[in-house]
Amino acid sequence: MAAPAPLSPLAPKTFPALPPIAGVRFATIAAGVRYSGRTDVMMALFDRPAAVAGVFTRSKCPSAPVDWCRAHLDGGRARALIVNSGNANAFTGGVGAAAVAHVAEAAARATGATPSEIFMASTGVIGEPLDADRITRVIDTLAADGREDGLFAAAKAIMTTDTYPKVATARVRIGDSEVVINGIAKGAGMIAPDMATMLAYVFTDADVSASALQAMLSKSVERSFNRITIDSDTSTSDTLMMFATGRAEHAPRIEDAADPRAASFKRALDKLLVDLAHQVVRDGEGARKFITVNVEGAASARAAKRIAFSIANSPLVKTACAGEDANWGRVVMAVGKAGEKAERDKLDISFGKIRVAHAGARDPTYDEAAASAYMKRDEVEITANLNLGRGRATVWTCDLTKDYVVINGDYRS
Amino acid sequence: MAAPAPLSPLAPKTFPALPPIAGVRFATIAAGVRYSGRTDVMMALFDRPAAVAGVFTRSKCPSAPVDWCRAHLDGGRARALIVNSGNANAFTGGVGAAAVAHVAEAAARATGATPSEIFMASTGVIGEPLDADRITRVIDTLAADGREDGLFAAAKAIMTTDTYPKVATARVRIGDSEVVINGIAKGAGMIAPDMATMLAYVFTDADVSASALQAMLSKSVERSFNRITIDSDTSTSDTLMMFATGRAEHAPRIEDAADPRAASFKRALDKLLVDLAHQVVRDGEGARKFITVNVEGAASARAAKRIAFSIANSPLVKTACAGEDANWGRVVMAVGKAGEKAERDKLDISFGKIRVAHAGARDPTYDEAAASAYMKRDEVEITANLNLGRGRATVWTCDLTKDYVVINGDYRS
Repeated sequence: MAAPAPLSPLAPKTFPALPPIAGVRFATIAAGVRYSGRTDVMMALFDRPAAVAGVFTRSKCPSAPVDWCRAHLDGGRARALIVNSGNANAFTGGVGAAAVAHVAEAAARATGATPSEIFMASTGVIGEPLDADRITRVIDTLAADGREDGLFAAAKAIMTTDTYPKVATARVRIGDSEVVINGIAKGAGMIAPDMATMLAYVFTDADVSASALQAMLSKSVERSFNRITIDSDTSTSDTLMMFATGRAEHAPRIEDAADPRAASFKRALDKLLVDLAHQVVRDGEGARKFITVNVEGAASARAAKRIAFSIANSPLVKTACAGEDANWGRVVMAVGKAGEKAERDKLDISFGKIRVAHAGARDPTYDEAAASAYMKRDEVEITANLNLGRGRATVWTCDLTKDYVVINGDYRS
Repeated sequence: MAAPAPLSPLAPKTFPALPPIAGVRFATIAAGVRYSGRTDVMMALFDRPAAVAGVFTRSKCPSAPVDWCRAHLDGGRARALIVNSGNANAFTGGVGAAAVAHVAEAAARATGATPSEIFMASTGVIGEPLDADRITRVIDTLAADGREDGLFAAAKAIMTTDTYPKVATARVRIGDSEVVINGIAKGAGMIAPDMATMLAYVFTDADVSASALQAMLSKSVERSFNRITIDSDTSTSDTLMMFATGRAEHAPRIEDAADPRAASFKRALDKLLVDLAHQVVRDGEGARKFITVNVEGAASARAAKRIAFSIANSPLVKTACAGEDANWGRVVMAVGKAGEKAERDKLDISFGKIRVAHAGARDPTYDEAAASAYMKRDEVEITANLNLGRGRATVWTCDLTKDYVVINGDYRS
């Protein structure tokens, strides 16, 4: 195991306080799954069944806990969530599936639930059998230790190569009630979510049905976690789940995501997921710059998104950003290879507000010094306007540095 | 400009002698397009019009010379080829198109040809206007300097971040005639050819019609240059062209690629293009390892190719190879994200002859020490067997090292 990477220079300066949410408590423990000297298992405990929604990786080789969560999501009820770091329990065959069932049964016994009300995730190395005993033997302790203010500690326990915990919080009104939404996430590498990111969990005391929660979450993820990429590699374990305890005072029951009383709740959820997704990018392995890629004027929104990801995933664009080089020719390359409609001689490219290329050639006003100065910033915005239609998309990524290679050449050994 | 990178450790130990080909001569010169102290323009001169075929990038933002070559390929006749390094003449608008026309006219005058018989390519930085005068003013010198033994020098003149020239040669019988095929290529970065690689040129004294040559080339490229990737980034300038002078003694005229007399010629062409494509991979920017990715048992050949490229383009697989880490979990990840049919619990993965994963889990006989020892080799073979169907594909790539990031963070500045 390599030494922990230093704190990302893009890390937030402060963390928000996470207000308690009635009906859910959190516990963490150092179970020795893989790491030593740090917590590596977290448990969320719901006093009464919470409504639950989730989106998962589209990988054809999903982890055993992803299989488990998918199979039990239809029930719409959660009594506990258990997440370990250090081992992904992915590609572990029958042993992996048995480990998940074993942990679920132990957690069900400890909480008076049925196994189908227990949700799980594992993150870490793929392909090594998970020793379920390391988790089952600490479950009674975890179940007894839950604290309303334990969410920040939970965010730390699920970190792998993350250099800081990702947390976000919002307060919003539904009808006459003020509800809280708290979220945590972990990311770092193997981040190109197709339905969700590596791991993210959102908790609220709003009273929302599981089906409405699912509709809100599925829509919101498309504008947040599905718009980020660290390295174009999609994890076997991507999981985003949301839990609603319904315990906020006077919270009206929301049965349908289209209920007008939920409008500000949905906006707050969108914002919170974008916040967490950005935090994942800011802690991308080896990241030194936060990059916003805008595509405008594409033939369709779908085309815009594909072109934006072609730019955001290009190693040459990302290394140019790392080298603080205003190499817009590589943006042209990435537009050209995306496979979507593009007309070279209509294309405009800007870095920040500096238009560097216009109508298929270098902008006549191009100023290398100004562009180079812009590239020295921590946050860089690249905009490609195809000037063909009304399709637009924004995605977020980070630069590709030597440290990414070092971290991922050493991760397992 | 960064200092030249040291010679790739995967470079060939010796270069083959390239026998002269009747009817074509080569000249090179230091024209100062961008570099100093080295040749940067090469010219191939055909005594009489040669049959010509070509395949080009599928980029939607192709370079000006790619546009020119495509427009004039239908004529099927070539009198000269001019290639410069240091500037790609890509995304250079009307100025770039004018530069190409200007060079073609000068070369036509110098060789008694029409401009449509002049073919061109430019490789280097994208988006900077090409100063055509630097080339036109040396054309008469080049036209007078052609040498039958000048091809190796030509291979050197077209290098950018390449650390060695790529050359290959073959002798083969067509009917009663022995013909020669010589090829050169350049690569290094922005290599994920969609129709051809960055630049490659093949010359033969066989007597083959332009249409037969095109059919052979299009088929052969699919098994060679279209099966390699350095960094998943497709160039604006990819060009592979082939020229047949028809000047071998007693060479029978081949009008149709299906002519049985051409069978061994086609096999030799396949082999020569694979050889050049491998040399491009072995000189990938920062490369320390040559990686063969085999996919077997996929639902179709197309699915196999997509899965193979998903593995070969994965930054996490490539950094694991750089770190000599037998991290087959990342191969599982890359199979899972490819979007093609896969059943986790049928998947086998091998490194060389060592099967590391079987039937959806770590192989029971897995020996970490043996797998780690294998990963220390210069050449690594990764095989994923989906055990679903008969689709198979092999692609070639290199590892992703810190040096790739250094080279591409510094390339322009």
